[in-house]
Amino acid sequence: MSARSARVSKPPVIVLVRPQLGENIGKAARAMLNFGLVELRLVAPRDGWPNPSAGPAASGADIVLEKAQVFESVADAVADCAHVYATTVRKRGITKPVVTPEQASRDIHAEEGRSAILFGPERSGLETDDVALARTIVTVPINPEFGSLNLAQAVILVAYEWSKHVPSVAEGGMALSQPTQEELAPPAPQDELDGLIGQLDAMLEDSGYYFPPDRVPSTRRTLRTVLTKAGWSSQELRTLRGVLSALEGRKRHRIS
Amino acid sequence: MSARSARVSKPPVIVLVRPQLGENIGKAARAMLNFGLVELRLVAPRDGWPNPSAGPAASGADIVLEKAQVFESVADAVADCAHVYATTVRKRGITKPVVTPEQASRDIHAEEGRSAILFGPERSGLETDDVALARTIVTVPINPEFGSLNLAQAVILVAYEWSKHVPSVAEGGMALSQPTQEELAPPAPQDELDGLIGQLDAMLEDSGYYFPPDRVPSTRRTLRTVLTKAGWSSQELRTLRGVLSALEGRKRHRIS
Repeated sequence: MSARSARVSKPPVIVLVRPQLGENIGKAARAMLNFGLVELRLVAPRDGWPNPSAGPAASGADIVLEKAQVFESVADAVADCAHVYATTVRKRGITKPVVTPEQASRDIHAEEGRSAILFGPERSGLETDDVALARTIVTVPINPEFGSLNLAQAVILVAYEWSKHVPSVAEGGMALSQPTQEELAPPAPQDELDGLIGQLDAMLEDSGYYFPPDRVPSTRRTLRTVLTKAGWSSQELRTLRGVLSALEGRKRHRIS
Repeated sequence: MSARSARVSKPPVIVLVRPQLGENIGKAARAMLNFGLVELRLVAPRDGWPNPSAGPAASGADIVLEKAQVFESVADAVADCAHVYATTVRKRGITKPVVTPEQASRDIHAEEGRSAILFGPERSGLETDDVALARTIVTVPINPEFGSLNLAQAVILVAYEWSKHVPSVAEGGMALSQPTQEELAPPAPQDELDGLIGQLDAMLEDSGYYFPPDRVPSTRRTLRTVLTKAGWSSQELRTLRGVLSALEGRKRHRIS
């Protein structure tokens, strides 16, 4: 292992504790894979495993389901993990650090050793005994008057935050498809913008737009400001000059 | 209104464009309310509105569904919005800035005027014509080998990021220390921009600019993109409409 890759922490394990519906397991798998997480562990799934409802809900994230491991207890599921996080929306009578998904993500990336993130059953969330196994509680800051997140939504927020802090490929990390501005052409050189302004200016002179004379300098300044604002590219300026030429040509055509 | 509350931007409007399943509308409403967003607009929902499948899926977010407004077109839905964001996972042949949900959230909080965020239909996403109405594209950085987010998941990630940047009451004072933004008038509501585009469009029709016929839709889209780029204020749009009227009047004057 190179020194570089050694700096990249292993992705966290997602542990679904006593999940009820196969459909929700599938949706959680999909949410994981969306953000590059592939290791799913199931603790005592209510309807057994495999579950025929999981596959269709995973919408193609089959690899996550196929590799999912099943355990009898939370303790077994996290036995190889150095850092265990418990997700809960409710306050618990347990004195542990409480962090946001963002902070948990930073910590997971900074830590050595495997991390596991526990998610409770759909209806009731994690039990106090489950939370007791964790060193840290993860809570999503949420609307206090409407605080229920479904299982897949909780998983996707945590996976999304984890992915945001993944080192780039150059840093030895994973390639997520970042938005790119490549397609956005840079603003044209100033003389091209001046060409547009000059063409419009001549047409407006001709039309009697500049009146009264004492306000012409400030009117010209205003127009220049408006036309500078967009930062048009060379291609966009050519389009706009074509527009002006069409408007000019129309006039010539009409009066000829 | 106090000075402090005047600095806090209004929450964005969530616009679901041609959503297919009522269940997904309900889940999107739930995701919104989880993070404090309540204004939902629907453009031409496939199965009409109200939809009996939406309520159960909203899991209690009924207030969002009850207040949802229905529009026939995207243009109508965002007519009062100064900032329009289009969410898309695919690269588009459209030259607009592309930002992450995090950056969009920061921008929305910094801007004055209403913001709208467009989400496309489940199966196909936003059409090119929908994206043309937006000034900015929002893309969630995602696993390039597994890039499909369902509708409610896309909504929850955007809503979650928005909620992360809501200023606390204590931070109200900090926002006041940005005097430079005050001088810059906010972009006009979308219908005012549409007024300019409509006026220019009629003039160009008249001039024979739109030729050949099969390229007219893409030419119109290009022009809209160019004219959307600047984010002109109401005052600036009035100036530009005066310019167009002068160019029109010149023609009338000459040929009379």
